[in-house]
Amino acid sequence: MNIDMIRAAAHRLEGHARRTPLLTSPFLDEIAGRHLLVKPECLQHTGSFKFRGGWAAVSALDAATRARGVLAYSSGNHAQGVALAAAKHDAPAVIVMPQDAPQLKIDNTRALGAEVVLYDRAGGENREEVGGTLAQERGLTLIRPYDEPEVIAGQGTVGLEIAAQAAEMGVTSGDVLVCCGGGGLTSGIALALEAEAREMRVRTAEPEAFDDVARSLASGTIVTNTRISGSLCDAIITPAPGEITFPIMSRLCGPGLVVTEEEALHAMALAFKRLKIVVEPGGAVALAAALFHGDQIEGEAVVAVCTGGNVDADVFADALAKYA
Amino acid sequence: MNIDMIRAAAHRLEGHARRTPLLTSPFLDEIAGRHLLVKPECLQHTGSFKFRGGWAAVSALDAATRARGVLAYSSGNHAQGVALAAAKHDAPAVIVMPQDAPQLKIDNTRALGAEVVLYDRAGGENREEVGGTLAQERGLTLIRPYDEPEVIAGQGTVGLEIAAQAAEMGVTSGDVLVCCGGGGLTSGIALALEAEAREMRVRTAEPEAFDDVARSLASGTIVTNTRISGSLCDAIITPAPGEITFPIMSRLCGPGLVVTEEEALHAMALAFKRLKIVVEPGGAVALAAALFHGDQIEGEAVVAVCTGGNVDADVFADALAKYA
Repeated sequence: MNIDMIRAAAHRLEGHARRTPLLTSPFLDEIAGRHLLVKPECLQHTGSFKFRGGWAAVSALDAATRARGVLAYSSGNHAQGVALAAAKHDAPAVIVMPQDAPQLKIDNTRALGAEVVLYDRAGGENREEVGGTLAQERGLTLIRPYDEPEVIAGQGTVGLEIAAQAAEMGVTSGDVLVCCGGGGLTSGIALALEAEAREMRVRTAEPEAFDDVARSLASGTIVTNTRISGSLCDAIITPAPGEITFPIMSRLCGPGLVVTEEEALHAMALAFKRLKIVVEPGGAVALAAALFHGDQIEGEAVVAVCTGGNVDADVFADALAKYA
Repeated sequence: MNIDMIRAAAHRLEGHARRTPLLTSPFLDEIAGRHLLVKPECLQHTGSFKFRGGWAAVSALDAATRARGVLAYSSGNHAQGVALAAAKHDAPAVIVMPQDAPQLKIDNTRALGAEVVLYDRAGGENREEVGGTLAQERGLTLIRPYDEPEVIAGQGTVGLEIAAQAAEMGVTSGDVLVCCGGGGLTSGIALALEAEAREMRVRTAEPEAFDDVARSLASGTIVTNTRISGSLCDAIITPAPGEITFPIMSRLCGPGLVVTEEEALHAMALAFKRLKIVVEPGGAVALAAALFHGDQIEGEAVVAVCTGGNVDADVFADALAKYA
């Protein structure tokens, strides 16, 4: 896993993934207490950065392997990213999703041409086992959501863009806050910035009670969440940081930040009001950290990655009613 | 008013205005019945394309004139665009607004650094007189919202971007639908496409009962709206097309499209769900025309400009409740 893989992925993604802009607002700067640059990956194809990793992984397969198809397990965004990437490569995709994933994500994944297989997350079924069995039976290639070098490479292209776009705006140092589940995006961005913007430091953002990465970074060893369901921030809830991603994060990333679910909803409302983008709760935790935990951040500028926008209308309307 | 002014404006806007992306969704393509490219100017600074015209006009002034300041009459998007453009040039901005304008709009305009001068609309004060007196006393330059060549040039940069970005995506012909008020944006885009994408044709989109431009285009002469208030699409309601903008539109633009307010709200909900952008009712009429009036459109691809996103949370939540 290295910067060359990220650069190669960037080359394969050109003309296929969207180069999302960096957004700013003087109103948000005032709340954050510093210049805030927002990378809205909710505007990426399928509504999250996951399309990048999906495309990178599918495009890296040889033609015969790709033609047999790919398999992914995902609470939603990775599913859609892989489904669309596979469809655009004319490859079959099977997606294993939890029964309690938002209906919009399940519907979208099916509409993007994938076969969806549901499993019972709360009831103790294990997605790795469900997916592994299917992959073996049908000769599908498993595309893991984060502990997969080509996926990390694809997500890392966000970091290449941040380095270039922030520099164009005169920002070459500061914390880069990333909503973190298993760490694929975080570790990819960290590797990209290590190569292209050494004065930028990646820090993870997670919701309270699901802060496995912050605690793992603090302790220097992988620790797990006590539960992995029951959060509005479902998109970024994973049991623990990955075996491939954690060593990268441990080497390169600063202390993790933790926000409340209410802070995430508040950040969603401010993103609506000031940036005109739709962000899902899990995709808003980095923005929430930038806005409401500025006392834990140093420097004159901060970058926050809004990782996804696949939120049900009622949850979004609730956030607006409370905080817009 | 010519393409050279638009190109010059583009040069001055570089690094200041945002180059908004062109967004797509397979789900929206299916509804539209053709490939749909969306230009989300809601993501522009201050939440609408008006920042482009504001910047173009302020940056075109000589330094001494600019230092004395600028003046605009507006309670909406033009006010914010001019206010921020002036602030970034360290130029004073005076915005004349009615006393009974929503407090939030007054506060926002002040927060962007402008001096807000209120006039008593109900008491019979006239904004032109109030503004004219101020302009004379302080040597301020009036920036009109659409019948102003440098403003048209700034808005026209949207057209240059559409031509380049659509071509990158393989689209070089088709209708370009633009939400139209006084015609500054529409005429600017039409001039840009005349020069850079001759197979693209600009068409206006307006809400039912406020279709002065469609009727003016049909009759070949400027006709007015019978009323200019009472629409959710307030951002694009003007009495009539402009004296400068109409001849350009009359020469270059195809028949105007008209949508219902409900169609605009439906388009807002689909933009939320499929593109993850926040669009205001007036900013959604072009998208609504592309989605729901495909029978009046020809060709394999269509471009819709979403002109702004400054919508109150309750209106947005209503649109989601009805249509998301």
